[in-house]
Amino acid sequence: MTAVDLAASSRVTSLLAEMTLEEKLAQITGFWEDEKGDVVAPLQGEVSVTGGLDDATRHGIGHFTRIYGTTPVDAEARARVLWERQRALVTGTRLGIPAIVHEEILTGLSAWKAATYPGPLTWGAAFDPALVARMGALIGRDCRALGIHQGLAPVLDVVRDPRWGRVEECIGEDPYLVGEIGTSYVEGVQSEGVHATLKHFVGYSASRSGRNFGPVSMGPRELRDVMMVPFEMAVVDGGVRSVMHAYTEIDGVPTAADGDLLTGVLRDEWGFDGVVVADYFGVAFLHLLHGIAEDLSEAAALALEAGVDVELPTGDAYLAPLAAAVRSGRVPEALVDRAVARILAQKEALGLLDATFDGPPPSGVDLDGPEHREVARLLAERGIVLLANDGTLPLAPRDDAAGDGGAQGAGASSRLAVIGPNADRYAAMFGCYSFANHVLDKRPGTELGLDVPTVLDAVRDELGPVLSARGCDVQGDSREGFAEAVSAARAADVAVVVVGDQAGLFGRGTSGEGCDTDSLELPGVQRDLVEEVLATGTPVVLVLVTGRPYAIGWALERCAAVVQAFFPGEEGARAIAGVLSGRVNPSGRLPVSIPRDTGAQPYSYLHPRLGGDTDVTNLSSAPPLGFGEGLSYTSFAYEDLAASGAATDGTMRVSVTVRNTGDRDGDEVVQVYAHQRRASLTRPVAQLVGFARVPVGAGGSRRVTLDIPAARLAFSGRDLVRAVEPGEVELWVGTPLRREAEAVVALTGSRCAVGRESARRVRADCQ
Amino acid sequence: MTAVDLAASSRVTSLLAEMTLEEKLAQITGFWEDEKGDVVAPLQGEVSVTGGLDDATRHGIGHFTRIYGTTPVDAEARARVLWERQRALVTGTRLGIPAIVHEEILTGLSAWKAATYPGPLTWGAAFDPALVARMGALIGRDCRALGIHQGLAPVLDVVRDPRWGRVEECIGEDPYLVGEIGTSYVEGVQSEGVHATLKHFVGYSASRSGRNFGPVSMGPRELRDVMMVPFEMAVVDGGVRSVMHAYTEIDGVPTAADGDLLTGVLRDEWGFDGVVVADYFGVAFLHLLHGIAEDLSEAAALALEAGVDVELPTGDAYLAPLAAAVRSGRVPEALVDRAVARILAQKEALGLLDATFDGPPPSGVDLDGPEHREVARLLAERGIVLLANDGTLPLAPRDDAAGDGGAQGAGASSRLAVIGPNADRYAAMFGCYSFANHVLDKRPGTELGLDVPTVLDAVRDELGPVLSARGCDVQGDSREGFAEAVSAARAADVAVVVVGDQAGLFGRGTSGEGCDTDSLELPGVQRDLVEEVLATGTPVVLVLVTGRPYAIGWALERCAAVVQAFFPGEEGARAIAGVLSGRVNPSGRLPVSIPRDTGAQPYSYLHPRLGGDTDVTNLSSAPPLGFGEGLSYTSFAYEDLAASGAATDGTMRVSVTVRNTGDRDGDEVVQVYAHQRRASLTRPVAQLVGFARVPVGAGGSRRVTLDIPAARLAFSGRDLVRAVEPGEVELWVGTPLRREAEAVVALTGSRCAVGRESARRVRADCQ
Repeated sequence: MTAVDLAASSRVTSLLAEMTLEEKLAQITGFWEDEKGDVVAPLQGEVSVTGGLDDATRHGIGHFTRIYGTTPVDAEARARVLWERQRALVTGTRLGIPAIVHEEILTGLSAWKAATYPGPLTWGAAFDPALVARMGALIGRDCRALGIHQGLAPVLDVVRDPRWGRVEECIGEDPYLVGEIGTSYVEGVQSEGVHATLKHFVGYSASRSGRNFGPVSMGPRELRDVMMVPFEMAVVDGGVRSVMHAYTEIDGVPTAADGDLLTGVLRDEWGFDGVVVADYFGVAFLHLLHGIAEDLSEAAALALEAGVDVELPTGDAYLAPLAAAVRSGRVPEALVDRAVARILAQKEALGLLDATFDGPPPSGVDLDGPEHREVARLLAERGIVLLANDGTLPLAPRDDAAGDGGAQGAGASSRLAVIGPNADRYAAMFGCYSFANHVLDKRPGTELGLDVPTVLDAVRDELGPVLSARGCDVQGDSREGFAEAVSAARAADVAVVVVGDQAGLFGRGTSGEGCDTDSLELPGVQRDLVEEVLATGTPVVLVLVTGRPYAIGWALERCAAVVQAFFPGEEGARAIAGVLSGRVNPSGRLPVSIPRDTGAQPYSYLHPRLGGDTDVTNLSSAPPLGFGEGLSYTSFAYEDLAASGAATDGTMRVSVTVRNTGDRDGDEVVQVYAHQRRASLTRPVAQLVGFARVPVGAGGSRRVTLDIPAARLAFSGRDLVRAVEPGEVELWVGTPLRREAEAVVALTGSRCAVGRESARRVRADCQ
Repeated sequence: MTAVDLAASSRVTSLLAEMTLEEKLAQITGFWEDEKGDVVAPLQGEVSVTGGLDDATRHGIGHFTRIYGTTPVDAEARARVLWERQRALVTGTRLGIPAIVHEEILTGLSAWKAATYPGPLTWGAAFDPALVARMGALIGRDCRALGIHQGLAPVLDVVRDPRWGRVEECIGEDPYLVGEIGTSYVEGVQSEGVHATLKHFVGYSASRSGRNFGPVSMGPRELRDVMMVPFEMAVVDGGVRSVMHAYTEIDGVPTAADGDLLTGVLRDEWGFDGVVVADYFGVAFLHLLHGIAEDLSEAAALALEAGVDVELPTGDAYLAPLAAAVRSGRVPEALVDRAVARILAQKEALGLLDATFDGPPPSGVDLDGPEHREVARLLAERGIVLLANDGTLPLAPRDDAAGDGGAQGAGASSRLAVIGPNADRYAAMFGCYSFANHVLDKRPGTELGLDVPTVLDAVRDELGPVLSARGCDVQGDSREGFAEAVSAARAADVAVVVVGDQAGLFGRGTSGEGCDTDSLELPGVQRDLVEEVLATGTPVVLVLVTGRPYAIGWALERCAAVVQAFFPGEEGARAIAGVLSGRVNPSGRLPVSIPRDTGAQPYSYLHPRLGGDTDVTNLSSAPPLGFGEGLSYTSFAYEDLAASGAATDGTMRVSVTVRNTGDRDGDEVVQVYAHQRRASLTRPVAQLVGFARVPVGAGGSRRVTLDIPAARLAFSGRDLVRAVEPGEVELWVGTPLRREAEAVVALTGSRCAVGRESARRVRADCQ
């Protein structure tokens, strides 16, 4: 392959024409230094390290890697250094091109003292794309203020196995939900002129037995119809500007070397015209871990040809090894030009080709102001899921909701005990890509620099004095604290037991990158702690603050109430306290199934009939609580469902009235599911095709109408063409397993292939 | 599709020309009645049942289903009925064509009082194709004697997940081992003129989370390069005459409706010219379970077009529903003709077109004579695997092996306790397709009719009086028997604890079809029993009599010795006793990995580097004891490995001297593994490419030479063409993780696609 269509602007074309090979390669690599100017290279010893800054940037540089997210340095001080660096590129290199500055932004900008929002599973649970877009815009605004051009988020991997440690970075188990929420996030970030980056294209979350980087066994239909859907939406609908490849292999082909994916699907089919970046060290891993490249030079050749434009975090393969490959004729320079043209076009779009950096660096940037706080609070409040409740919650019924028909809570005057390893730990609020758990955990003694109450703090603020006891740690075998916890529970009317995960990296936690699990029981001795507290007879409100769903079916049956929070962020503890007290009426819905047990994995609610319970196996697969479930302090009823079919290239319409039949205001998440009764290949028993978060006042009702493109039911046929087949479709509101109201409609016409426009989103109107 | 090339003999062609549609459809369906003449239809109520015999066979019939294997009736009495039935077809139908009689033959002929051999995992563990061929020939001979023309075995599903209940029906985890052993079985059966049937083509063993019939997530390379390999060998090398489709779907396509597999791969690529039969009810399941057919008529159309020639066990879809589809023009009659031509050709080859059945039915057939017994004994003895031994075994060193350097066993004079739920149960010796556990378990009180000692019986026979206690049942929570077991252990010098499975169907056991598991701990309270016996301090010899490998890593470390038997058959208990006493020097090797734990599934030793232990996950995947491992009472050393490379279309040669360095005669299983260092796609870290069971006298040595076709290293490239790539190949003897001697050779030349001849087997010479 030597004929490469650059399709670049005249400015990029003429720049390219005058660049040396070294200057080109510099543009498609990154440079990473810490606040002392030392090179950061986590895989040092395995991967060759580039020289110091001056050496690394004398030909220019494509990216500055993680200027803010590597060490706890004041952001404005760091910005001053960055401006100097950029100025040096403008004035001290031949072409004068500044670097793209990229940073992690998974749960907020990864910078010291920057707002840390709830993790992606909470976004999924909130079913609130607009709010996620607002968060994205705030993140984008902060990035822009600090000279960051590209953020490495969102993660659009569809959850396939809760054992995987990176489940906490994902939005959920349903590809359409992931796509809606993820695309909204992209639109938010990019509305501020900052480029979002989709991670990880594609398949990573299906790693074998939930082990990070494990090989993926998957055929083209599951890949297309499940795993790719959110990426397609974010590319086609969201216009995302960057995509990162996945580390894994699918059916023997490492994604970083898969041109059918990185070029064929992404660019040729979907029309993506941005930049594909490497996951960190992912190019070198083609040699080091996958063994499909003889050396770094061949690794570079494979990745470049497949369509990895920019190597990150540094140029381990794309500098000297790629230079050698080009000089020897093994790699056509036209392939280098293709990648360089793309990053230069990105820099042009970002205004970097004209940037001089001779103005002052930013000052007065507020990374955690009232607006950040409001969004963090709303998202946490809407993303907490009430899994079970025998009426013990809310603890303090609101005055305006109390009355004969009201929920009978334990009351504000009850004595409370707040127990458990996540009760009084702010780090429990954050995921592994938060600054707190990504950077500060290695720097004990460094202040967090954010106001982050613990659950205990927040409950005390909201409900007054309580008893407390840690009981045990998140990990480890010690039961030494059990006695104190049991005493506290005995002395209380209600015991709030807060258990769950500690996020960390590569074995330093119970959830997060490289923190996979062989068991879906709560980590350590936490289940035993809960059991001992249950044995006191004091009603237990179990609060799960986790990064993955755990197999807590036993707790659903035996606890008075169970509340699920997925790393709810800096306002998470207040949101939890609000749910406990009743100030917040819970409205989150499960974005992932509560697993039945470890031995039932992998599992997805999107299974064909034979992936569920049948007569041909003795085992059940059914989760104790499935995707989409979640309780409220009020109750909702559905009336007057009207549904219309459509042509296979048309749009179905579902209208339904949702009535708040309780005595509290509340939000209902109207979820529409579909099942095609007979298709040419097996189809899932249920598939989310639309949703709307709908606030409904006590006693009131809303009419909700969703226009659902038939294309949502497209699937890859025997010919591997994604198409909609005619036939009868069951449509219902509720959850995959609970049909509150239903109808059967017809898709008419002939089988209809869906094209690039098919990713368009569902429109929902509420009146 | 209407142009169907029949390629049939003139006799078949002319028969076909005169057949009515009803006569044709009768030929491609089966009829199933029990000994009372009642129709057997396990799915009655879901699947329409055909009428009685006369009605069902008035147009002839393709197959008689399970004449012998349905109920405990004397085989010769049953044969008399069968001869009458066949005679009625010959004389009472227009065309006079007898039926093919098929029967299950997985662990021997499924008939009352017929020899029951060890299960397929034991065949895999024995690494002895010639012995398996001898067993197959005996099974074929008995079939022939009883008028059975087709046997439903072997199962060539490659084990992918030990949770699946049908693992006990499989040969092992390595496709080449499965192919060698399975092809030998086919050759044995077919040497007697009886047709073998490969089950289940293809993918079934990879059902999601080990649940029977669960959807299979798999790409084309894993399917081709792992799952299909044994089928290809049995078709191309073994010339098998029949293949059965799998129940499952792969990536959305139910196999029974997959013409790319059943016709494209099987016939067009591999040249198969036999008959494809349905797994029982598999055609109807396209409608009932997979939902890709509107009704039985469409199910029939899909299956017939894909290439399912004969519906079994009865004609639920291929009779009236298919007739309607043909009459309405929905299905071209030429497709029916294609299937009919194939079964008529099969009948012609079997001599059935000329059979008159006017001779006497068989008498004096010995279904369990000395030869059966010898083969059952040898296979059990060679297939038992010694997993751990601190020197406690053998219990009674043979006189000729005793001495200063000899293993220090506990001695024949030790007091033994024989404990555990499988210690005194003959049914523990058999899998779920044995007559004992398939039929007799539903008929309590019916005699087994075979001489099958229990382990307790056999140990007493071999070693004299012992203490005994059951301890607990295989399933259930009762610990009532623990105290008695602990007393027995306390009173003994060595406690032999015999634990494991009870095979059964659909939840009636802990292993077998429809007996999947969520946990790889020993069933019930058996681990607790072992722990209590261990706590006595008496050395424990753990004997596992199971249908799947269990996660017994804990036992390997804490028991004095661990012996693994996979449902070892009618002579299994004597073989176990022989291993315990030392009369038998154990020589089996694990055909499946001992699983690390439930949360580590699925797992296969055939993983690329990232499927094993890495720095990027906190979890290990390594099994406590892997594929190919197994101890002996003597020791072996390898010397003088010589290996030569080859052209990519050539043959590598490995020669090595194996020396018995101990003081007992023994068999070593020389295993040759390969790893291609760099390939265009990821490759397994180890792959079995050849093996030879080699008897070596104490102190002696043998030179073993294996000629290994380079084609064994073929894999499907990006173009999905299976080919051998040039490059360096590591070759070693030992096990996947243990290299006793190794060499690196080169595959030279260009990438070479492998054709139909590629399935040829490895030749091994021992001198």
